[in-house]
Amino acid sequence: MSLSARALRLADRAFPRRPAHAHCDVPCGIYDPFDALQAADTVISMVTKLNDLTEGGMDGPADWNTFTRMFVVKEEHAEKAKHETLILWSDYFTPEHAAALPELHEAVWAATKLGTFAKRNIDLDKANELKAAIQKVADIFWATKA
Amino acid sequence: MSLSARALRLADRAFPRRPAHAHCDVPCGIYDPFDALQAADTVISMVTKLNDLTEGGMDGPADWNTFTRMFVVKEEHAEKAKHETLILWSDYFTPEHAAALPELHEAVWAATKLGTFAKRNIDLDKANELKAAIQKVADIFWATKA
Amino acid sequence: MSLSARALRLADRAFPRRPAHAHCDVPCGIYDPFDALQAADTVISMVTKLNDLTEGGMDGPADWNTFTRMFVVKEEHAEKAKHETLILWSDYFTPEHAAALPELHEAVWAATKLGTFAKRNIDLDKANELKAAIQKVADIFWATKA
Amino acid sequence: MSLSARALRLADRAFPRRPAHAHCDVPCGIYDPFDALQAADTVISMVTKLNDLTEGGMDGPADWNTFTRMFVVKEEHAEKAKHETLILWSDYFTPEHAAALPELHEAVWAATKLGTFAKRNIDLDKANELKAAIQKVADIFWATKA
Amino acid sequence: MSLSARALRLADRAFPRRPAHAHCDVPCGIYDPFDALQAADTVISMVTKLNDLTEGGMDGPADWNTFTRMFVVKEEHAEKAKHETLILWSDYFTPEHAAALPELHEAVWAATKLGTFAKRNIDLDKANELKAAIQKVADIFWATKA
Amino acid sequence: MSLSARALRLADRAFPRRPAHAHCDVPCGIYDPFDALQAADTVISMVTKLNDLTEGGMDGPADWNTFTRMFVVKEEHAEKAKHETLILWSDYFTPEHAAALPELHEAVWAATKLGTFAKRNIDLDKANELKAAIQKVADIFWATKA
Repeated sequence: MSLSARALRLADRAFPRRPAHAHCDVPCGIYDPFDALQAADTVISMVTKLNDLTEGGMDGPADWNTFTRMFVVKEEHAEKAKHETLILWSDYFTPEHAAALPELHEAVWAATKLGTFAKRNIDLDKANELKAAIQKVADIFWATKA
Repeated sequence: MSLSARALRLADRAFPRRPAHAHCDVPCGIYDPFDALQAADTVISMVTKLNDLTEGGMDGPADWNTFTRMFVVKEEHAEKAKHETLILWSDYFTPEHAAALPELHEAVWAATKLGTFAKRNIDLDKANELKAAIQKVADIFWATKA
Repeated sequence: MSLSARALRLADRAFPRRPAHAHCDVPCGIYDPFDALQAADTVISMVTKLNDLTEGGMDGPADWNTFTRMFVVKEEHAEKAKHETLILWSDYFTPEHAAALPELHEAVWAATKLGTFAKRNIDLDKANELKAAIQKVADIFWATKA
Repeated sequence: MSLSARALRLADRAFPRRPAHAHCDVPCGIYDPFDALQAADTVISMVTKLNDLTEGGMDGPADWNTFTRMFVVKEEHAEKAKHETLILWSDYFTPEHAAALPELHEAVWAATKLGTFAKRNIDLDKANELKAAIQKVADIFWATKA
Repeated sequence: MSLSARALRLADRAFPRRPAHAHCDVPCGIYDPFDALQAADTVISMVTKLNDLTEGGMDGPADWNTFTRMFVVKEEHAEKAKHETLILWSDYFTPEHAAALPELHEAVWAATKLGTFAKRNIDLDKANELKAAIQKVADIFWATKA
Repeated sequence: MSLSARALRLADRAFPRRPAHAHCDVPCGIYDPFDALQAADTVISMVTKLNDLTEGGMDGPADWNTFTRMFVVKEEHAEKAKHETLILWSDYFTPEHAAALPELHEAVWAATKLGTFAKRNIDLDKANELKAAIQKVADIFWATKA
C-alpha cells in the first residue's frame, strides 16, 4: 500500500462518521464519482491478475476456473464503471454545468468507450486509461462543487 | 455536509490516486468495510426519505411511485449491507483473528440481524443501529490491520 | 392499430427472413435503435395503463398488485431505453460521426435525462418526449447509414 | 444486408411511429414473436462468430476473453428465445387457438428443446433449426391474427 | 404442521444422505418436480399472508413495506413455478414420454397459465389450482419413472 | 439411486401434500436447511462432472462450452449454499439458540469458508466437506426443533 493510501486509511479511521451514501436515482440528491473510480480500479486489478495468471500459459482446469472468475469480475466492473459514470452524466450534471464545462460530454464519452474496450480486451494500458478518463469526469464533477 | 466530511472530501481530492478496489472473492486479496458502511448509509437515507414522504399521508400515484422506488433501494442496500459484511466474515477473517478477537462472530451476527430488520421495517433508529453494528465489525477489521 | 402499423405488420410477414439481431458489445457489429424505441413505447404503454388504473382511486389489494407490476415494467423499460441508447452512443458512434453530427451528444443526453424522469414520475407527456428524444438519436443513427 | 432486409429498413424509416411494444405479462395485451426471433438470430450470430474464432485453434488470453463473452451472449439469448416463445404459449394462445391449430403444442415444444440444445452446444445447423422452429410458432401466431 | 408432514421431516432426518440435486440444463441428468412444487407452495403462502395483511385495510407505511415484500416473493415464485415446470417439459420429457402420456402438453400448459394468473392476481383458490396443476405434471413425471 | 433415496422418493409420492415452502425473509416463519443442502449437492455434482470432462484434456470449443456452463452452475450453487446457510443463521437462529448450542457460529462460519473455497477451486474432497459442514448446521437446526 502506498504512503498516500495509507494516509487516507488513517483518515478514514479518524473520521468514522464520514457520510458515504451511494447515489441512486430515487433521487437521493447525493452524487459522487467514488463508485465509478472504484470499479475502474477493480478492472485494473483484474487485468493485472489475468496477465499474471496467463503469462506462462494456462495449466489445467484450476487455472481455467480462476481465469473465468477474473473475467467475470472484469466484465461486471467495466460495465459498472460505465454505468456509474453515466448516472453522473444523466442525473447529476445540468445544462448549466455543460455550458460552463464544455469538455463534459467528450470526457464522459471517452470513459464509456474505454469501458467497452476493457470488456472486450485484457489490456493494462487501456485499463489505466479507463481510470484516468473517469478521473477526468471526477475532476469536472468536483469543479462544479468548488 | 459536516466539517469532518468536508475534510475528507478535500483529502480525496488531494490524494487522487488512492487505491479504491472493491473486494471480491476471486480473491483479489483486498478487503475493506467501506462498501458495507456505504450500504448502511443508503438504508438510513432511504428510511429518512420514506418517513418524510409518508408522514402526512400518501397523495396519489406519484407518491406511490416514489414510495416503491425508495423501498427498492432500501431493500437492495439492506441486503448489500449484510452481504458485504458477510464477505468480510467468510473470506477475510481467519481463525487467528477469531481467536484474538472473540467478539467477532457476535458482532457480525448482530449486523446481519439488523440488516434483515431493515428490510422488514421502516425504522430510523434501527437503521442507525445497523450502521453502528457494521461500524463495530469495521473496527474489528481495522484492529487486525493495526 | 394504426394503418401504418398494420402495413408494417404485413411487411413483417411478407419478409419473414428479416435479420433481427439484437446488438451486443461482443461486438457483433450490428447496431439498431429498435430496442431503445421499443422500450420507450413500453414506458408509454405503462404510463397510460397506470393513469387508467389510478384515475378513479385505487380499490384494494388487487389494484395495488397491478400497480406494482406496471411500476416494475415502467422502471425496467425506462432503464432499458437509457441503456440501449447509451450502447449506441458508446459503441456505435465514432469521433467521425460526432464531428459530422454535432447534435449527437446533446440528443443522447436529453434522452437519458428523460429516461430518468420516466422512472421518477408517471407522466404521459414526458414519456412521449422520451420516445421522441430516442427517435432523434435514431434519426442521427440512420443519417450515418445514408 | 439482403435486399428484403434493406427494404424493411427503409420501411422502418418511412413509418417512424410504428408501435413497437415489447409484450409483458402485466398484461399489456400486446404480443409479438419479434423478440423470440431476434434472440434466435443472435444465437445464430454468436455460433457463427464462435466457429470463426475457434476454427484455427485458440491463441491466448485475448481469444479466451472473446470466447467467454460470445458464450455468455449465446447462453443468454438461447434462454431468451425459449422464454419469449413460452410467454406467447402461456399468455397469448387460448384453448380456442389450440383447438383450431393442433400443431401448436408440438411447435412450441420443439422450439424450447432446440433452445436448450443451443445452450449446450456450438452448432450452426441446430441454431438455424431453432430459428426455423420459432418461425413456425410465429406463423401459428400470425394465423390467429388473420 | 400436519402429521404426514411431520412424518416426512422425521424421514428427512433419518436419511440424511438423501441426494437432493437441483436439476440444471448443463445437463446434470437429474430432474425432479420438487422445486416447482416448492415454488407453488410459496405462492400459496404469500397469497394467504397478503389476504391476512389487507383484509382489514392497510395501515400506513409499515404495511405497504410488508405488502411490497410479499408481492415480490409471490411474483418471483410464480415465475419460478412456471420456469421449473417448463424445464421439466423442455429438457426431461421425450417424444416417447409424450406419445405414452398424451395429457403431458395440456398439463404443462395449464400449469403455466395458472402461474401467470398468480402473478396478476391475489387469489387463494387459483394459487391452490396452480399447486394442483404442477402436482399433475409431477404425477406424469413419476409415471415415467415407474 | 441408493436404497434410502429410493425409499424417500416413495415417501414423497405417498405424501403428496407435504408442505415444501422455501423460506424467505418476508418473514414467512418457515425455515429449512433443505435448499442449502441441495445447493451443496449440486456443487458436488458439478465438480464431479468437471473432473470427468477435463481429466483427459479439453478437446475443442464444445468442451469449453460445457466447461463454462458447469463452472457457472458450480459458482452459482456455491454462492447459494452460502446464502441459504446464512439466512438460517441471521433470520432463524436466536440468541437463546446460540446460548444453548455454542458450536453454532463456528459451524456456520466453516460452511461459508468452504463455500468460498468451492467457488475458487475444483476440488471434490472440499465439495464433500462443504456438504458435511452444511449438514452440521442442519443438525444444529434440527436440534432446536427436537
